[in-house]
Amino acid sequence: MSDLSARFSPSRREVLRGIGLVAGGAAMYRAMTALGVTRGSKYTGPVDLSGAPRGASVLVLGAGLAGMTAAYELRNAGYRVQVLEYNARPGGRNWTLRGGDTYTELGGERQHCEFDKGLYLNPGPWRIPYHHENLLHYCRELGVALEPFVQVNYNAYLHSPAAFGGKPQRYRSYKADYQGMVAEQLAKVVGQGALDKEFDKQDREMLLESLREWGYLDGQLRYTRNDGTSDTRGYDKDPGGGLSGKPVWSQPLSAKDVLNSQLWHALPIGDVYEFQTTLFQPVGGMGRIGEAFGRELGDLIRYNAKVTRIVQDEHGVSAHYEDAAHPGVTRQVRADWCLCTIPLSILGQIPMNVGSAMADAISAVSYAASVKIGLQFKRRFWEEDERIYGGITYTDLPIFTIGYPSTDFFSRGKGVLLGAYTWGASAFQFTAMSPAERVREAVRQGSQIHPQYANEFENGIAVAWHRVPFAMGCFGEWSDELRAKHYDNLCQIDGRIALAGEHASYLPAWQEGAITSALDAIGRLHQRAVAGAKS
Amino acid sequence: MSDLSARFSPSRREVLRGIGLVAGGAAMYRAMTALGVTRGSKYTGPVDLSGAPRGASVLVLGAGLAGMTAAYELRNAGYRVQVLEYNARPGGRNWTLRGGDTYTELGGERQHCEFDKGLYLNPGPWRIPYHHENLLHYCRELGVALEPFVQVNYNAYLHSPAAFGGKPQRYRSYKADYQGMVAEQLAKVVGQGALDKEFDKQDREMLLESLREWGYLDGQLRYTRNDGTSDTRGYDKDPGGGLSGKPVWSQPLSAKDVLNSQLWHALPIGDVYEFQTTLFQPVGGMGRIGEAFGRELGDLIRYNAKVTRIVQDEHGVSAHYEDAAHPGVTRQVRADWCLCTIPLSILGQIPMNVGSAMADAISAVSYAASVKIGLQFKRRFWEEDERIYGGITYTDLPIFTIGYPSTDFFSRGKGVLLGAYTWGASAFQFTAMSPAERVREAVRQGSQIHPQYANEFENGIAVAWHRVPFAMGCFGEWSDELRAKHYDNLCQIDGRIALAGEHASYLPAWQEGAITSALDAIGRLHQRAVAGAKS
Repeated sequence: MSDLSARFSPSRREVLRGIGLVAGGAAMYRAMTALGVTRGSKYTGPVDLSGAPRGASVLVLGAGLAGMTAAYELRNAGYRVQVLEYNARPGGRNWTLRGGDTYTELGGERQHCEFDKGLYLNPGPWRIPYHHENLLHYCRELGVALEPFVQVNYNAYLHSPAAFGGKPQRYRSYKADYQGMVAEQLAKVVGQGALDKEFDKQDREMLLESLREWGYLDGQLRYTRNDGTSDTRGYDKDPGGGLSGKPVWSQPLSAKDVLNSQLWHALPIGDVYEFQTTLFQPVGGMGRIGEAFGRELGDLIRYNAKVTRIVQDEHGVSAHYEDAAHPGVTRQVRADWCLCTIPLSILGQIPMNVGSAMADAISAVSYAASVKIGLQFKRRFWEEDERIYGGITYTDLPIFTIGYPSTDFFSRGKGVLLGAYTWGASAFQFTAMSPAERVREAVRQGSQIHPQYANEFENGIAVAWHRVPFAMGCFGEWSDELRAKHYDNLCQIDGRIALAGEHASYLPAWQEGAITSALDAIGRLHQRAVAGAKS
Repeated sequence: MSDLSARFSPSRREVLRGIGLVAGGAAMYRAMTALGVTRGSKYTGPVDLSGAPRGASVLVLGAGLAGMTAAYELRNAGYRVQVLEYNARPGGRNWTLRGGDTYTELGGERQHCEFDKGLYLNPGPWRIPYHHENLLHYCRELGVALEPFVQVNYNAYLHSPAAFGGKPQRYRSYKADYQGMVAEQLAKVVGQGALDKEFDKQDREMLLESLREWGYLDGQLRYTRNDGTSDTRGYDKDPGGGLSGKPVWSQPLSAKDVLNSQLWHALPIGDVYEFQTTLFQPVGGMGRIGEAFGRELGDLIRYNAKVTRIVQDEHGVSAHYEDAAHPGVTRQVRADWCLCTIPLSILGQIPMNVGSAMADAISAVSYAASVKIGLQFKRRFWEEDERIYGGITYTDLPIFTIGYPSTDFFSRGKGVLLGAYTWGASAFQFTAMSPAERVREAVRQGSQIHPQYANEFENGIAVAWHRVPFAMGCFGEWSDELRAKHYDNLCQIDGRIALAGEHASYLPAWQEGAITSALDAIGRLHQRAVAGAKS
């Protein structure tokens, strides 16, 4: 289980955020309600940009969610806005691959997505937490329909080739057995007086009573095979009706097996703030958000524009770029101010005259590795055969993740699984393969969990983020030390240039981080612009 | 917290099932896949009715899900089928109240549902577990569209007027604090050697490591205020982007407060087999299923037919009934066999010549009390103000439950909450009130959790199941003792009469119980019919 350990142990929270690929927090833009802190907050609009100086202009580099949020708000506030975007489409890492799409990675390997109509892979972000309210705000404002995303599915699996003979365990059963074991052990020592100093008699009674309910313990505070435990871990034969309806209870796993299987690494994922219910996804793919922004901004965005140099002086900022349609020809645009949302992995290679504080910050942040692979199957066997409707299976095979679609439940057609979502060392292994090899390897590994793969697989597509030309990595990785040293320097306006993106946020990898960093940055740019116009 | 205690303590499992109102197991109708017991099972069709004797007829009493399942399968197998139904609509307890509907309860109080178009209340069942595969099978077969039902919402509340000064606690925060407290205490005693006899060194290391991850403990195995605990219980200020994005951690509740608040009663609900992800609901209301069955069966169903007497002899079964359109006039239908799905609460009052074993069983089962109240509000303040998208708030106020709609998320229009879903003594209190009083009381109580009620409430409707003319109670309550004595006698065919319904199942209150009991019963009736035809 070394991979699972590495994934969840040293800084589980950070890594789990990474799993989400991109987004959420936004506290600055809210007014807390009169109900108090724990009662949530009401979204009160993004940022105050009133009083934009007449004729003031802003150049936005990058049409990902950060850049497009900025362009949208600045335009609405009266600024003249231009956006340069490397790709031929809006969205950046907000991206959905559908049948008919092509994608060429660094090195020149070109993939054609062969998914059937309606099926897709989100290579980047794929879920939206309920508290990523700025992102949700823009979905609503731009008319992007949302549907629930199922993260925790009690009927999906936890799996390790080294545990239980490689037999996948239903999440519900393993969770129940872990929780029952914890409750039984704690109840036992409470009964033996081990917590008498810590808790008074009433507290101890409450604790025992709560453990009994929460851990499905019997009257003797034991976690055993009975109707109660079967009604959480599942039955060998479900209860039904009539004379044939009597249920058959299931046998819990032993405490030793529960512990040493180490499948417990995956138990708390659904408790993480970003993965708690209720999560959402755009109907039709995450890319619907970027597409909606793109439609809204229209020809403010110049596509296929590869920025090659950024130069500021005391009056404004110029960006040099190459048009992919005319290789070798460099063009130039200029504005009073510049918001640059280009990933640091790319930006570090582009000449830009900023001070050493910002320059050092840009080069300090490395980018996480991640690979996502979408696999199309002839039928939705995970639903039809195994009653898995959405959610995620976790394994310590290098694929890490099998994600089941949270849409079109019960449909009889084909389906696309997220056949791998991996990071760290495993991601580098997959990145080193050719796209076709990645897909084959994902099918090979996934077959250990779903033997149906062998007969049902049709085609696949694989995105390795370190080979994505416009990102060269998945998201900016911050350690506490790096953040203490460089974060504020990265975010401070340097002359007429400000940076934004998930890398300039406390929400690495999340779309909400990109959006809130953009709102924060344009708020400060606006203040400079207003102050400059008055002076 | 006496109500919450009563609700979850003595037989939590049974009561929790009751919460669901009606359905699921069906193990007899499946073939286990080659993957083994824990790998789920594949639905292989409902019941073998091949070789129905030519011209054989079955009279079905009741057009709820049990009766209509039976009628549908028997008709398809070649039987002549007639169904008598008391109501003017199909479905029975599968029932959705929408704007324009009227409902008259026992005692004559008539309510007009004033909900806006598209809004509804399911007075009976409202959710479908993933493993209620017979019910899911019929939804698919009859074209009933399903969407996810959100049961556990980490951002909904746990509430008691006696705890935390009456301030509702977010589920996510309370759950994290309870889990952290349990993990911290168990880790401490493990460190003190309390489990050295139980577990070897490796086990203990695994246990400590797992508790650290699962309980969000720090390096010293303490559950404290830090980034990790805030990333499960929530922040005082969420992380965001730019210079303003630094999060502010939240302060965990004290262990003493966690225990003595007794909000832990509601923590394990989402772990119960019937309430685990992924749950579903029909788009447009649970009643869509009954309506679809009704359309399918067409004029096989005679509505407004109140059965007054059931008489069998050695050749067949006759039912006497009154047509609501012609009061006082009794009519009669006859068939070779009878499947009676009338709730025992009603059936016990209808003369029927069966043996004492079945008769005693019929009168032994009492019916649970339950009340549901739907409240329409001018806007979806729970989403707009409090970011609660679906799910349930639990309180120990007599309303017990506030259910948030799992559909039309983010819509700007009006919304209907399940403003009360209560049972036991509280249900009897509500049942004793007039419908208008019930609604007022639900608004009064719910305002303690959502102060917005005062300004936003528009209208409501209240269904008290002991006053529902066609059920006179919510579902049949079985104790282990009652079941040992009477259950088989209830299900055995008596002459030419068999019974079915949720009351004849190991899934009281669940629709799947009704359906599987019907399939079980018609399978046995069919065998009798075939045997009789051959003899």
